[in-house]
Amino acid sequence: MQNFTFHNPTEILFGKGMIAEIAGRVPADAPVLLVYGGGSIKRNGVYDQVRIALKHHRVIEFPGIEPNPLYETCLKAVAIVQAKQVHFILAVGGGSVIDAAKFIAAAAVFDGNNPWEILRTTGGCVKAALPVGTVLTLPATGTEANGNSVISRQATQEKLHFTSAHSFPVFSVLDPTTTFTLPKKYIRNGIVDAFAHTMEQYMTCPAGAPLQDRLAESILHTLVEVGPVTLAKRRHYDARASFMWSATLALNTLISCGVPQDWATHMIGHELTAFYGLDHAETLAIIMPGVWRYKLAAKQKKLEQYGRRVWGVRTAAAAIAKTESFFHNLGMPTRLGDYKINAVEAAEKVRARFIARGVAFGEHADIDGNAAAAIIRSRA
Amino acid sequence: MQNFTFHNPTEILFGKGMIAEIAGRVPADAPVLLVYGGGSIKRNGVYDQVRIALKHHRVIEFPGIEPNPLYETCLKAVAIVQAKQVHFILAVGGGSVIDAAKFIAAAAVFDGNNPWEILRTTGGCVKAALPVGTVLTLPATGTEANGNSVISRQATQEKLHFTSAHSFPVFSVLDPTTTFTLPKKYIRNGIVDAFAHTMEQYMTCPAGAPLQDRLAESILHTLVEVGPVTLAKRRHYDARASFMWSATLALNTLISCGVPQDWATHMIGHELTAFYGLDHAETLAIIMPGVWRYKLAAKQKKLEQYGRRVWGVRTAAAAIAKTESFFHNLGMPTRLGDYKINAVEAAEKVRARFIARGVAFGEHADIDGNAAAAIIRSRA
Repeated sequence: MQNFTFHNPTEILFGKGMIAEIAGRVPADAPVLLVYGGGSIKRNGVYDQVRIALKHHRVIEFPGIEPNPLYETCLKAVAIVQAKQVHFILAVGGGSVIDAAKFIAAAAVFDGNNPWEILRTTGGCVKAALPVGTVLTLPATGTEANGNSVISRQATQEKLHFTSAHSFPVFSVLDPTTTFTLPKKYIRNGIVDAFAHTMEQYMTCPAGAPLQDRLAESILHTLVEVGPVTLAKRRHYDARASFMWSATLALNTLISCGVPQDWATHMIGHELTAFYGLDHAETLAIIMPGVWRYKLAAKQKKLEQYGRRVWGVRTAAAAIAKTESFFHNLGMPTRLGDYKINAVEAAEKVRARFIARGVAFGEHADIDGNAAAAIIRSRA
Repeated sequence: MQNFTFHNPTEILFGKGMIAEIAGRVPADAPVLLVYGGGSIKRNGVYDQVRIALKHHRVIEFPGIEPNPLYETCLKAVAIVQAKQVHFILAVGGGSVIDAAKFIAAAAVFDGNNPWEILRTTGGCVKAALPVGTVLTLPATGTEANGNSVISRQATQEKLHFTSAHSFPVFSVLDPTTTFTLPKKYIRNGIVDAFAHTMEQYMTCPAGAPLQDRLAESILHTLVEVGPVTLAKRRHYDARASFMWSATLALNTLISCGVPQDWATHMIGHELTAFYGLDHAETLAIIMPGVWRYKLAAKQKKLEQYGRRVWGVRTAAAAIAKTESFFHNLGMPTRLGDYKINAVEAAEKVRARFIARGVAFGEHADIDGNAAAAIIRSRA
């Protein structure tokens, strides 16, 4: 087991009616920036619950955060935060809204000339951030309980992430009933996203950490079990709640304690979103089986363990096939051809970008531009 | 799944050499009270590592915390904290030392006449506490990452606990190598303690929380797997590290999120320690199988699930028998007779005390004095 530091100060408020609990947790001595997206929270009652909870607070609204939130949009919010002396940011929505709020919170107090530095240094230059609270309405990314954020820049077709200990939300409300009205595609994406997050921290070379393996398998098992149920029966509270809590624990930094991590699937996937506009989860379902097959020698033991424990199969190949079938059964394609994307062209675009940046990913840092291109071509 | 709030702000510093990390985390602007036990930390090098890390701090030592730490001893430390204006308490040792530090930290700033109120109200009256950091040298109780503390009062032969959100350590160092010199009995006790903690939050009526079930089973599985290894090979780093991390996660409040809890075994066990001086873990190994058989109807489904998933057996009876065998293989007795304690007499003592206090435990709050007496008699 590797040495590690684990520190997750986010308070989770989980369950029916928990939005009311935010009233005492949002400071009332300065304006609050309420950040949200396209307005679905006005149709499903979440907006009303939040405004009732904050009826004694001064609230400044900042709607219009996009899916794959834009740097350009965030900078407009930063200007408002600075002009109005906002001291607290409340993000109400899915991962994009929360990621945007984290970036706004860090950029608003950034001690430098250009907040793009926050992304260019993947958070290394973040020394402080305004406090952020969240009301999560879309289980998927785990951003409600970690210090990560992914931001896209329209001008350059780039999608970059940052991580900071200052960017953990101070609280996050997870009320499964607020997700009952989500379209099926969002649930499908969320299940695959949580599954892939777990895998990035689990499907590596063995590391002498049997507890971490079993914790990760717990999440995988649960997603396999409740995923199809919550997709079919959206008002089944326990299934939706189990999915929601699984998505949080998949990326609250617990299961990565003391073990190597991969993340090549995510890094390649981000480029496919940046170039082709695929949903984040769609890119993961395409790339992940390709990474596993490409790195079969290094990952074989863990793939066999995964197959045996989660699927009851014996071989690495069968474990990969079971995973692809699981995605297909959720209605999630796993090939670039399913989206009419030319794999050879995509491979060259990503290869060029990785090489230009001089980056390589995976637990052995060997998924460079050439490896990424080979993986992408294998997913035609 | 039940509604829940989860908030665990303790920073975990895990691994070889991590004691050095405390230097920057202990404030240097006021004296630090260094609380420890009988001096084993001077023989195993931990004391030296701590003093080197704190070479620029003003340190006041308070050694002599007993196993089952005494209220009377803690009050002496409280007097020193108040007289010397101590602002930070560093506990170096096992669960007893950490529990004592938590009580001292709460009692030192207690806004009332009698700090016994902290225990009488099980922490309800705790409104603040000094910050506590810990260096854990005995994996067992989980106190390094929760707000719980158990304190004994010599004068009245009482053992009571309190819980407070103010009593989570700000940091805890877990270096598995500091535990290599522990006697086997302490390791045996720690494995059983962590196992029983997990069970108190798992072995209840089903609650529509499949992820929590699997997380708990992960810890049980790991303890079954690495427990005998770490007992036999004390310098096997990965086995000791996995045991240590299992013991923390068994009681860091994660696996209890959204599910009912039992704790009858602990409450009965505390009385056996108070009356007969048995080690905490010894009482748990005696009582737990008795609670399960007494509540077989309510717990049958979960016992069967546990047996199937952790032991590969089909019936509740076989699952209980496997658990008793596991304890025996660790060298842990499971009967009062093994300690020459008269079960009928013990049953009457505990019955009288529970009835006098008007208490009842278990997930259905039906383990009252009479039920406890029946359970104790069954463990002759």
